[in-house]
Amino acid sequence: MSIHDSTSQPKRIGVIDLGSNTARLVVFNAVPGYAFRLEDEIREVVRLRQGMTKRGLTDEAIARGFSTLRLFKRFCDATQVETILPVATSAVRDAANGASFVGQVQREIGLSLRVLDGEQEAYYGVLGVLNGVPVSAGVVLDIGGGSAQLSEVRKRRFYRGQSVRLGALALTERFVESDPIAGAELKAVQAEIDRQLGTIPWLEPDDAPLIGMGGTIRNLARIEAERQSYPLNTLHGFALSRDSVEETLDLLRTLPLRKRRDIPGLNRDRADIILPGVMVVQAVMERLGVDGLTVSVNGLREGVFFEHFWGHLPYPVIYDVRRFSLLNMARLYHYQKKHANHVRYLAGRLFEQLTPLHGYGKPEREILDAAAVLHDLGVVIDYEYHHKHTETLIANRGLPGYTPREIALIALIARYHRRGRPKTLGYGGLLHEGDELLLTRLAAILRMAEYLERGRNGIVDDVIVSQDGEGICVTLVADEYPAVELWQAEHNALPLFEAAFERPARLESIAAPLPG
Amino acid sequence: MSIHDSTSQPKRIGVIDLGSNTARLVVFNAVPGYAFRLEDEIREVVRLRQGMTKRGLTDEAIARGFSTLRLFKRFCDATQVETILPVATSAVRDAANGASFVGQVQREIGLSLRVLDGEQEAYYGVLGVLNGVPVSAGVVLDIGGGSAQLSEVRKRRFYRGQSVRLGALALTERFVESDPIAGAELKAVQAEIDRQLGTIPWLEPDDAPLIGMGGTIRNLARIEAERQSYPLNTLHGFALSRDSVEETLDLLRTLPLRKRRDIPGLNRDRADIILPGVMVVQAVMERLGVDGLTVSVNGLREGVFFEHFWGHLPYPVIYDVRRFSLLNMARLYHYQKKHANHVRYLAGRLFEQLTPLHGYGKPEREILDAAAVLHDLGVVIDYEYHHKHTETLIANRGLPGYTPREIALIALIARYHRRGRPKTLGYGGLLHEGDELLLTRLAAILRMAEYLERGRNGIVDDVIVSQDGEGICVTLVADEYPAVELWQAEHNALPLFEAAFERPARLESIAAPLPG
Repeated sequence: MSIHDSTSQPKRIGVIDLGSNTARLVVFNAVPGYAFRLEDEIREVVRLRQGMTKRGLTDEAIARGFSTLRLFKRFCDATQVETILPVATSAVRDAANGASFVGQVQREIGLSLRVLDGEQEAYYGVLGVLNGVPVSAGVVLDIGGGSAQLSEVRKRRFYRGQSVRLGALALTERFVESDPIAGAELKAVQAEIDRQLGTIPWLEPDDAPLIGMGGTIRNLARIEAERQSYPLNTLHGFALSRDSVEETLDLLRTLPLRKRRDIPGLNRDRADIILPGVMVVQAVMERLGVDGLTVSVNGLREGVFFEHFWGHLPYPVIYDVRRFSLLNMARLYHYQKKHANHVRYLAGRLFEQLTPLHGYGKPEREILDAAAVLHDLGVVIDYEYHHKHTETLIANRGLPGYTPREIALIALIARYHRRGRPKTLGYGGLLHEGDELLLTRLAAILRMAEYLERGRNGIVDDVIVSQDGEGICVTLVADEYPAVELWQAEHNALPLFEAAFERPARLESIAAPLPG
Repeated sequence: MSIHDSTSQPKRIGVIDLGSNTARLVVFNAVPGYAFRLEDEIREVVRLRQGMTKRGLTDEAIARGFSTLRLFKRFCDATQVETILPVATSAVRDAANGASFVGQVQREIGLSLRVLDGEQEAYYGVLGVLNGVPVSAGVVLDIGGGSAQLSEVRKRRFYRGQSVRLGALALTERFVESDPIAGAELKAVQAEIDRQLGTIPWLEPDDAPLIGMGGTIRNLARIEAERQSYPLNTLHGFALSRDSVEETLDLLRTLPLRKRRDIPGLNRDRADIILPGVMVVQAVMERLGVDGLTVSVNGLREGVFFEHFWGHLPYPVIYDVRRFSLLNMARLYHYQKKHANHVRYLAGRLFEQLTPLHGYGKPEREILDAAAVLHDLGVVIDYEYHHKHTETLIANRGLPGYTPREIALIALIARYHRRGRPKTLGYGGLLHEGDELLLTRLAAILRMAEYLERGRNGIVDDVIVSQDGEGICVTLVADEYPAVELWQAEHNALPLFEAAFERPARLESIAAPLPG
């Protein structure tokens, strides 16, 4: 992968996460500090914890672990993964023979497995979250199979956190035998949850937001996304309400397994263990007094990666998530930087000067700005319908740091930068009242800026917007008469512009002689 | 753009086509002889021919031409287009002041405009066609605004061709004033068409296919595509039947302009001039005694580009269109060559040995082969749903040289290489009877090959397929025991494999010791 304008060669970085239930190899392709993308992923069900005794991991579990780690290592060697960052969590951590397992892995496979303690596990999850969610203070909840991690964030730093044995699989194995769950079992799970959460004194009402991750929460989000016919492909940034969690909880509590499996959005092979995990989510929401949580698709694995990616910073968390995710996407898709920046500049000038007419402010300006940077990315798929492809890219990959509503608007504005009457298409459910007009206006501004820069040479230095009895006048400032930009903009951009601002508009130009 | 495995840097090549009605700049990004893609396009309505007299082009037309050529030159300079190939056709060719126009363009703008005569115009159209259509002998028809070109192809070479004044715009301007067209005008157009076509003696029934291009034919194809709800995004390779042409002809003849504009698929600003062009298509089909034509989206501009791109060959036409278009797409999207080749190899071994069960042959093998090469391309969009993105890429860009049915099958097989029960989705209209089973079988084979190569290190050297009372046995040949490939294939590929071949199947392995 070549990344636009980077003087460094991209490297492949592999993160191995050896958990109680599954092991994952995740490969990133990155120019550290500049841009990255997820490139490959292998997930193996190892069930490392299965049959564990006081003596530690069983021989069969160890053999499975070895097979998998060997596959991961061979994969990395075959695909030029330069840097491998292998970590192990609760099964290896708790096993009596954990240390000898780690030694054997080093000798026989050549991987230096780092065993994370509970606080470290929480820490890396928070690193993963902070690099994708623009939060300064709050609580992070990660529910996995074996354990759950709860952490507190202050001033965009991990402040404290710990691991508790409240994983969905762990709770199911200990307390649940009936299908559907019996009343007594339900009580027992609840009691265990309350007991364990009681050991975390700082888990109490605060105004801070809750961010959630891990399999249980992703499934809850997907179930709700199905209910809403959520139009974005990514669940990152999804707003999961407490009401939704409780609605799903009722279903899981009352339906037998064969019916739970059919709940739209629920991963079939999680249907048997998810209920206790959902109870943990509800309990945490109640203790914090929050109405919902924001989903982060990034977690521990990304945290381990980011520690490497931002290794040159004093603390491996980017200050401005939104700005970076915009530039990251632009760089990955080889954006034409000069063109994008000039269109962005002209669009900004139009936006500022039209404020008396539209009344929008900084939030709307940022949406327009993002659309201007990304509008041509779809060319990487093909040129003819690149406007639709840009929409697809944005709606598929999402933009960490931007809300779902913003992502939908950015995708739509970019889609309509060439032609056509803007419509909200399938994204209506994410939009607010007044957003259809906002979309039309911002798309009109972007389209105008695009056609004023059709020659890709910055010939239009500036635009001056004024109003008179005949409507809006957009005056182009240029060194030479921009004949074709004028024609292109009049023919292709003016109609939508007039419709968006509900009055006639015209283009004029003044050639500004060079100083001296 | 970086292209996989190329040691040369890609260059940007611009083709300028100055016609009677429109002028186009088309920018390709290419490593000559290796891979290319269309990267940008500007289309300007110049109407160069408007008001032309015996003295030549009018001053206003010349001024418009200059503005446009200046824009194109500035665009190329601003975007590092290294090589500009500017050609002019019928208006400049016919104009009395054509030569002085060309001289002025050279002096004032720095473009060396090549004025093509009728035969050269036909030649370049044929170059464009041959590089995208695997035809050895046939007739090529290009209907433009001012003129039409008819050419004969023999042994994949341009044999002969000429330009006739049968362009849609030219005929409309000469003969059509009423709306809808009057009976006498219809007769006059027909008479002119017959007269002109009569000057081409070789235009007579032959078994050779007809390939068509240009605006009129693309519109006819789009109109028919709308009727059929055609699922591919590209019209290249579209089979346009004579019946369809005649159905559209009836509509155009009887409807007034305001209703013609609403014909789905018809470009609104062509509705006033297209009828005579369609009559030319029908007349040519009749003279050749053919039932339809194949659409080529590539024409003169691509031909000019290909002369440069294949400049190192004795004749600038690729021998094997299909092979090149497959490799071209793979290279553009940075395919993992080793992985794709090993999957392709294993899929081929499975296909060969399963022949007694499926009975397929070379055509089906080529479809499987193409899907194997391209299956992971979607990763360039994002990893999580890359199977769907591969499908999108193939259905959007098409694969020159492959039929629409083949493109649909390749896209579907690639989409189902990871999981899920193959369905024909929206492509049913392109498929033949038995294709749903073909899709299932080829997807099952590809999926098996994919999981046997999950480790990306060629650990499985070969597969041996046998049958016994218990069903199919697939034996993996490897140097060491491929534990995880076995597990991955059993878990992820075996179910579909058994369903596709309607009998139980199992995987075994023998470790083949290294020789000596």
